[in-house]
Amino acid sequence: MIDPDTLARIDSLQLRYARALDTRNLAAWAECFGEAGRYICIARENVDQDLPLAIMMDDSRARITDRVTYVTEVWAGTFEDYQTRHFVQRIDCVPRGTDVFAVESNFLVAYTTTRGRSEILVAGTYEDEIETGRGEARFRAKKAILDTVTTPRYLVYPV
Amino acid sequence: MIDPDTLARIDSLQLRYARALDTRNLAAWAECFGEAGRYICIARENVDQDLPLAIMMDDSRARITDRVTYVTEVWAGTFEDYQTRHFVQRIDCVPRGTDVFAVESNFLVAYTTTRGRSEILVAGTYEDEIETGRGEARFRAKKAILDTVTTPRYLVYPV
Amino acid sequence: MIDPDTLARIDSLQLRYARALDTRNLAAWAECFGEAGRYICIARENVDQDLPLAIMMDDSRARITDRVTYVTEVWAGTFEDYQTRHFVQRIDCVPRGTDVFAVESNFLVAYTTTRGRSEILVAGTYEDEIETGRGEARFRAKKAILDTVTTPRYLVYPV
Repeated sequence: MIDPDTLARIDSLQLRYARALDTRNLAAWAECFGEAGRYICIARENVDQDLPLAIMMDDSRARITDRVTYVTEVWAGTFEDYQTRHFVQRIDCVPRGTDVFAVESNFLVAYTTTRGRSEILVAGTYEDEIETGRGEARFRAKKAILDTVTTPRYLVYPV
Repeated sequence: MIDPDTLARIDSLQLRYARALDTRNLAAWAECFGEAGRYICIARENVDQDLPLAIMMDDSRARITDRVTYVTEVWAGTFEDYQTRHFVQRIDCVPRGTDVFAVESNFLVAYTTTRGRSEILVAGTYEDEIETGRGEARFRAKKAILDTVTTPRYLVYPV
Repeated sequence: MIDPDTLARIDSLQLRYARALDTRNLAAWAECFGEAGRYICIARENVDQDLPLAIMMDDSRARITDRVTYVTEVWAGTFEDYQTRHFVQRIDCVPRGTDVFAVESNFLVAYTTTRGRSEILVAGTYEDEIETGRGEARFRAKKAILDTVTTPRYLVYPV
């Protein structure tokens, strides 16, 4: 049984993460990762078949920082912007050594289409490794596995 | 850090609110507001551009009571009814003086179309001021900010 | 006021249930029910009109076990498979005698269509009777009431 305070800190990280993306604050998104943080966004199809091809693969903190630059500086103005709204539900949480937890969550991301309607952008699960050691909890690794095979639009922002 | 009991009372208010709307119990909806309660439902477009035009603007408890009368007596039988299903996720909670909290939440409202399918009606954020002073928590102010620009049907019920 | 530990065990059951279905582990689904467990999946239309016609009606643990056999052995390979993603939000929880609780929740199930998009499969409420007596909490009765009248595809898996 994990103590309620640790769970609260873990949930709080997930909500900071959701908020960072929903407010398109990419710097705050990067801050959710620890120094050795990794981010992967991949289709469940590929996970199931053990294929490594990912939609986004930031396997170091430096690449996470690069992604912030791409989205906010390099790509800025070249893509059709969109507003997301994340919902996250923790399904499982298992200790993995001192102050590290393997956390699985369901997620659903709604977005507003250019026609002004809200639809589901992607749904799936997060498989995360979360450090709760010093200060705020952070991701050591975050893997967003998409049920959705064909997203209704291309993804610019992380999920 | 806000104590777990206060957070539980705040969350409980949000669920009472959701349940009131999902059961189309407008009187119970009005009861979620304190004596000086205000309710605003507005598009994010307008908030971002600082335009005051709102979809619903009940800037006093009397107007909230009026809305109950409109929906349940004046408009009754004149609109195509619909069933909603609200989901709310608290994202932030900050104290604003004694027994008052500024609470931000993500929401998603599913509804059943006349063709019998379930779709997203609206998604967005609640920016609320919640009083936890005496008895049950209540809204001093509730602002529903819709990401959705063009709702798939006209809104009769508050969000 | 129900103690936080009991609520945590109740919520944990709902998440085990969601996970069992989302991973298509029907045996784990059946394990969520107690010895005298019952499962009903019914349209709200019928509940409102007091019509007993249900989409699924497993009124004993034996029928629940039968459903596992149907889905995993009898029907296997004869239906177009689909991936669900459940979201559950507890709305109400009331004691019903020693170690038994009547629990109401909102649910939304997203699924991935054959075209690879994620949409809402069904939304509605769970009306459950949950036993928290020995070991893990289990369902004495689970009733899934669907707002959705016309599901976008036929339901193979329980909701």
